[in-house]
Amino acid sequence: MAALTEFELIARFFRRPGRSAVLGVGDDAALLQPAPGCELAVSVDMLVAGRHFFADVDPESLGHKTLAVNLSDMAAMGATPRWALLAGALPQARPEWLAAFAHGFFALADAHGVELVGGDTTCGPLTLCITIIGEVPQGRALKRSGAKPGDAVWVSGALGDAALALAHYSRDIELSSAELATCERALQRPNARIALGERLRGVASAAIDLSDGLTGDLAHVMEESRVGARVRLGAIPRSAAMEARLRGSYREVALRCLLAGGDDYELCFTAPPERTAEVEALGRELGLEMACIGTVTEGSTLTIDDETGHRLERVPRAFDHFAE
Amino acid sequence: MAALTEFELIARFFRRPGRSAVLGVGDDAALLQPAPGCELAVSVDMLVAGRHFFADVDPESLGHKTLAVNLSDMAAMGATPRWALLAGALPQARPEWLAAFAHGFFALADAHGVELVGGDTTCGPLTLCITIIGEVPQGRALKRSGAKPGDAVWVSGALGDAALALAHYSRDIELSSAELATCERALQRPNARIALGERLRGVASAAIDLSDGLTGDLAHVMEESRVGARVRLGAIPRSAAMEARLRGSYREVALRCLLAGGDDYELCFTAPPERTAEVEALGRELGLEMACIGTVTEGSTLTIDDETGHRLERVPRAFDHFAE
Repeated sequence: MAALTEFELIARFFRRPGRSAVLGVGDDAALLQPAPGCELAVSVDMLVAGRHFFADVDPESLGHKTLAVNLSDMAAMGATPRWALLAGALPQARPEWLAAFAHGFFALADAHGVELVGGDTTCGPLTLCITIIGEVPQGRALKRSGAKPGDAVWVSGALGDAALALAHYSRDIELSSAELATCERALQRPNARIALGERLRGVASAAIDLSDGLTGDLAHVMEESRVGARVRLGAIPRSAAMEARLRGSYREVALRCLLAGGDDYELCFTAPPERTAEVEALGRELGLEMACIGTVTEGSTLTIDDETGHRLERVPRAFDHFAE
Repeated sequence: MAALTEFELIARFFRRPGRSAVLGVGDDAALLQPAPGCELAVSVDMLVAGRHFFADVDPESLGHKTLAVNLSDMAAMGATPRWALLAGALPQARPEWLAAFAHGFFALADAHGVELVGGDTTCGPLTLCITIIGEVPQGRALKRSGAKPGDAVWVSGALGDAALALAHYSRDIELSSAELATCERALQRPNARIALGERLRGVASAAIDLSDGLTGDLAHVMEESRVGARVRLGAIPRSAAMEARLRGSYREVALRCLLAGGDDYELCFTAPPERTAEVEALGRELGLEMACIGTVTEGSTLTIDDETGHRLERVPRAFDHFAE
């Protein structure tokens, strides 16, 4: 098959009839008409092969995940995602790879009504960069800075399974094939909690999505809100695979995965205690496990109590992209 | 000096007090309030070391150029740039490099009133990705699709000097040190034609910025407008260095630089012939050389007449990122 030019590539896989955009892919810029009374929430994420994903990962899953991690930022703001731009460096132009990537990307985009309105492709080490733009009613966005002492700390869904899959690959832990399948799904097919974020507007006092790991991400909320937090390890939702490792000889690895593994894309948020019943009802309505894992405190310290009520001595910290 | 964490890096070099954004760097997303009656123009560009720039390029110039190429997309839409997001993969976190890059970036951003409202940094092969967001009064954006047969084809400023610098580096051509200085400035410090783009609203029928080279970029306008074009080689503005090469034994290389070199970041636009005086007056007012280089025609062919009025046999085509 003859090599496709860059422009043919874009046209073939990523140009689709415009929907909500005034002008989509194919001009110097997309033209967007934001809804009146809304602010725009805008975020960018860059994913590098060998660091955020394996270079030989299934391209359809990669297409899904590349968008999912950005949708997750919208969920964390309580924003409704509307438009995305995709820039990618690719080592070569392989039509089958691109078709599968586009399939995974657009399946998720369509599920959330997100339109791809711009992009850039170039040759280079496999790197993907997504910009996501969402809308949120003016003044109603969920920020990191609103947590107050006394608020409850909540988490949606089980944490650490994506990190368990990675720990299995690196032979730090061994999962059964059934456990691995569950953990791989968490790693490769995360779901952004868009509906939850939208419904938390006016309920949550602060929110963040768990991309770097619970301790690190919660620390961002604490810093922006100038508060501390006290978390009960036993209250953090986890899978059966995680629970088994926490009770066994791989407890240290499991703790690191649960508290600092990252790649969870669940929401961590705070809400005044009087909103507890509301949050629980929301969880039932959306079919999401909503766990109250602790309390916002005065000060600036993150304390984690283990299952016996003792303070955890060493709190695993979040992944830092330049720390290794 | 101790290694900085990713978050310290962001805080140190890229977090500045917010201005026009409701919420800037430091949350899951930035919150922006678009002006009423405006559409948003949004564009993304990815620059890869070794392809779009030399890995050892002066970081201050790189900071300037990374933003400039994106501002140029706004100019091409007639949009006023407002906000930018910057994602970067860096092989390592070198504070001096980052400080210089940030200096070049923010100097240009400040000159155009552009605010950096989001970003992402990660470790990886040096890759930069900018998303730029601008505003344009509703329905007034300059698109690629409005050119009509009979319209004049215009170009702002001299073309091909950036490509001449690259041709010198690759020893395809030899420049004097004075010529090289001029051409290097064109390569490393391009100026986006923002004021020109804004003033062309309601005057130009179509516009594009010259990033891939005149022939390729004009072809995009032709395709989107379903027209052809006839261009006079002799009318294309060029530097003295370019003129000398076009007349000498390096004519073929010079032609390729002039017509398909790219990295010009001048505007190419079309306008009805009755707007000629207006365009010329605008050039005088803005201190820009405005050259009418040809005419929009029926059909779909790009014809270039050489200095003697003969049709150029082989028209150099634009750079394709996957073609080599």
